[in-house]
Amino acid sequence: MIANTLVKSKLVCVALNDKHQLTALQDTFKKDPYKKPPTQPVLYYKPRNTWNVDGAEIEWAKDFDGQDVASMVVGASLGIVIGQETCRVSVENALDFVGGYTLVADYSLPEKNYYRPDIKGKCLDGSAPVGPNIISRSTLENLDDLQVVIKVNGERKSLFALADMERSVAELISIISHIMTLQPGEVIAVGFAGDRVPVGKGDTVEASIEGVGTLTNTLGGA
Amino acid sequence: MIANTLVKSKLVCVALNDKHQLTALQDTFKKDPYKKPPTQPVLYYKPRNTWNVDGAEIEWAKDFDGQDVASMVVGASLGIVIGQETCRVSVENALDFVGGYTLVADYSLPEKNYYRPDIKGKCLDGSAPVGPNIISRSTLENLDDLQVVIKVNGERKSLFALADMERSVAELISIISHIMTLQPGEVIAVGFAGDRVPVGKGDTVEASIEGVGTLTNTLGGA
Repeated sequence: MIANTLVKSKLVCVALNDKHQLTALQDTFKKDPYKKPPTQPVLYYKPRNTWNVDGAEIEWAKDFDGQDVASMVVGASLGIVIGQETCRVSVENALDFVGGYTLVADYSLPEKNYYRPDIKGKCLDGSAPVGPNIISRSTLENLDDLQVVIKVNGERKSLFALADMERSVAELISIISHIMTLQPGEVIAVGFAGDRVPVGKGDTVEASIEGVGTLTNTLGGA
Repeated sequence: MIANTLVKSKLVCVALNDKHQLTALQDTFKKDPYKKPPTQPVLYYKPRNTWNVDGAEIEWAKDFDGQDVASMVVGASLGIVIGQETCRVSVENALDFVGGYTLVADYSLPEKNYYRPDIKGKCLDGSAPVGPNIISRSTLENLDDLQVVIKVNGERKSLFALADMERSVAELISIISHIMTLQPGEVIAVGFAGDRVPVGKGDTVEASIEGVGTLTNTLGGA
């Protein structure tokens, strides 16, 4: 297990925070069992066994029988690094509790549906590189201007503007801090493009945000 | 935040592992969106902010506006403490990777349905006491003989026989170790009675397994 010294104790990811994805899913939301879109942020954890670092090789996932899986996907997000204990803070004050910013990549199995908590596909060993560094809060003026770019083997495959997030960074920190108390060093991945990017064995993936940094990882199994 | 020194890095809970509950849910399973029962164990995490200890007062949960919630429930489970790195082990060898046994209680908001990952209700601060001690593996001969008992204010409210688990401890360790590598000190709560026990402000809750121990906690808010 590779130690990621940037993350302390918790990496929370926000799913379904891409406005365009939510629009595309409207018909699905109307069906059973919910009959309406989620009213709260949909969260999932990337547990400690998933944490990884810039430059590391990402293990190609295996199925239950030890055979290589057919396909993997990657998403990337701005990572909010909590700077101080954060409990039930208002949207107005939420950004005061940010210690800094980083990048989170999330390698996973493709999801078959959006309903069931996909623990199996989301907690692959070493599937969540975080880094390469933590950028001071004061260096980023307007988060809405940021774009998360994913390149595979040098070619751009995804661009996600933070302005297209259904809930803003400040809103998410406020809401999550009402659900659980956050501690310094905990990281929130605030939003991924709705369409994850397919990757193959041996691919080199660069996830980047201008002014925050670039996470570069290579897929294993080649 | 109260440090629980028994748990290292991860507390994984297995939901829907009570045979009687699964039987009762058969009609629900046939409906959209799944149309069949879960084919894999349904897992959820209790993150670090939830970890708590024997004897601690459990905070009465508040809603988003800071008002006390109307109701809370508790479940209890045998806790498997992992003894060594556990990756893709067979059912036959799984128990060799157990370091010891303990108790896990899980205080939460009542669940409205079983579909959505109920992060909000499951990750209340301090809602997962673990302990009071770790019992050596060799002291428990037959796990199927164990019963998890929950008493509220001295009155027995729930009894769950481990023989009624859909998947055994060895099966769960094997399956989970194929999903993620487990590390020493990580804890798996293997199964809860399908019906959680309602609790009120000021109640004293004892969760116990004979030969493993008793976790005693009092609800706050009284």
